[in-house]
Amino acid sequence: MKLLALCGSLRVASVNAALLRAFARLVPSGAGLAPSPRLGDLPLFNPDLDPAPPAVLALHAAVAAADGLVIATPEYAHGVSGTIKNALDWLVGLEAFVHKPVAVINTSPRAHHADAALRETLRTMSAGLVGEASFLLPLLGAGLDESALAASPQVAAVVAEAVAALRAERARQQTSGVAVFPLR
Amino acid sequence: MKLLALCGSLRVASVNAALLRAFARLVPSGAGLAPSPRLGDLPLFNPDLDPAPPAVLALHAAVAAADGLVIATPEYAHGVSGTIKNALDWLVGLEAFVHKPVAVINTSPRAHHADAALRETLRTMSAGLVGEASFLLPLLGAGLDESALAASPQVAAVVAEAVAALRAERARQQTSGVAVFPLR
Repeated sequence: MKLLALCGSLRVASVNAALLRAFARLVPSGAGLAPSPRLGDLPLFNPDLDPAPPAVLALHAAVAAADGLVIATPEYAHGVSGTIKNALDWLVGLEAFVHKPVAVINTSPRAHHADAALRETLRTMSAGLVGEASFLLPLLGAGLDESALAASPQVAAVVAEAVAALRAERARQQTSGVAVFPLR
Repeated sequence: MKLLALCGSLRVASVNAALLRAFARLVPSGAGLAPSPRLGDLPLFNPDLDPAPPAVLALHAAVAAADGLVIATPEYAHGVSGTIKNALDWLVGLEAFVHKPVAVINTSPRAHHADAALRETLRTMSAGLVGEASFLLPLLGAGLDESALAASPQVAAVVAEAVAALRAERARQQTSGVAVFPLR
């Protein structure tokens, strides 16, 4: 199972970015988590840009090729980050996004506004948001880097549960006849 | 009173952009509404970019020079547009944004998710969100262009009320000793 990370922070020292890198190291065999596309390279959403710019087409292709998405993103001023929302704005209406199994990892217990807004947007976009694959991991301020996160039993347990739940959702869709890209 | 428009859509045919241009034509004498900075020219928010890029510094300067802001922005997938949130992400912590009188004009009766999220973010950023200056104008799908909007008595009434309320808030702040940029 090929999963794709989407990171809503562009900071080098981002805990969300570190968590996604640790997630990739902990993914069980038979699955993989590809690094997040550089969402900071996307233009700001503008449907007048037709055909869509290369960075947008690359995002579309990466999402289409993935069996599921793992999103980790910060909250800024009680809202989603402009970076993750801009990436999602470019994915609205993309055929390959519909029913795509998605896990949302929230790294801050205080970030409930952004987490709720993100989930509302994902549901509105008809993503296959998987509740059992989505977790609150209170990492903000813990000062853990990628290696420390990869060594954490709690993080390992979350990764195992998230991947299992995404895999189960994908299997459920395939047996129930839901057409989900990529067709294999 | 110098007001600054902030438009959360980059579409040429955006009803929000048309409304802001009509608003500028209807502003009563003694006030003015400057066109929205091109928010699509901003990079995606990244605090590692230090010093901030020129487009960000230009936005900061335009906001600092304004006596108030008029925001009109669409809802995308039950959320704020990535474009307006990205602009606000760059304004978090800007001294000149705190207590700045802000009017929010919502052009779609269905866009209550984005309107609520935008207001929550503005309050969190300590903007001087002025409820009496903020309106729902159900324009989406009405097919009105800038000229038609500028000729609408309903739009004219909203502009007059919004400007009066922003002016009253600014005056209240000045007499109550709140320090609001620009100091005059």
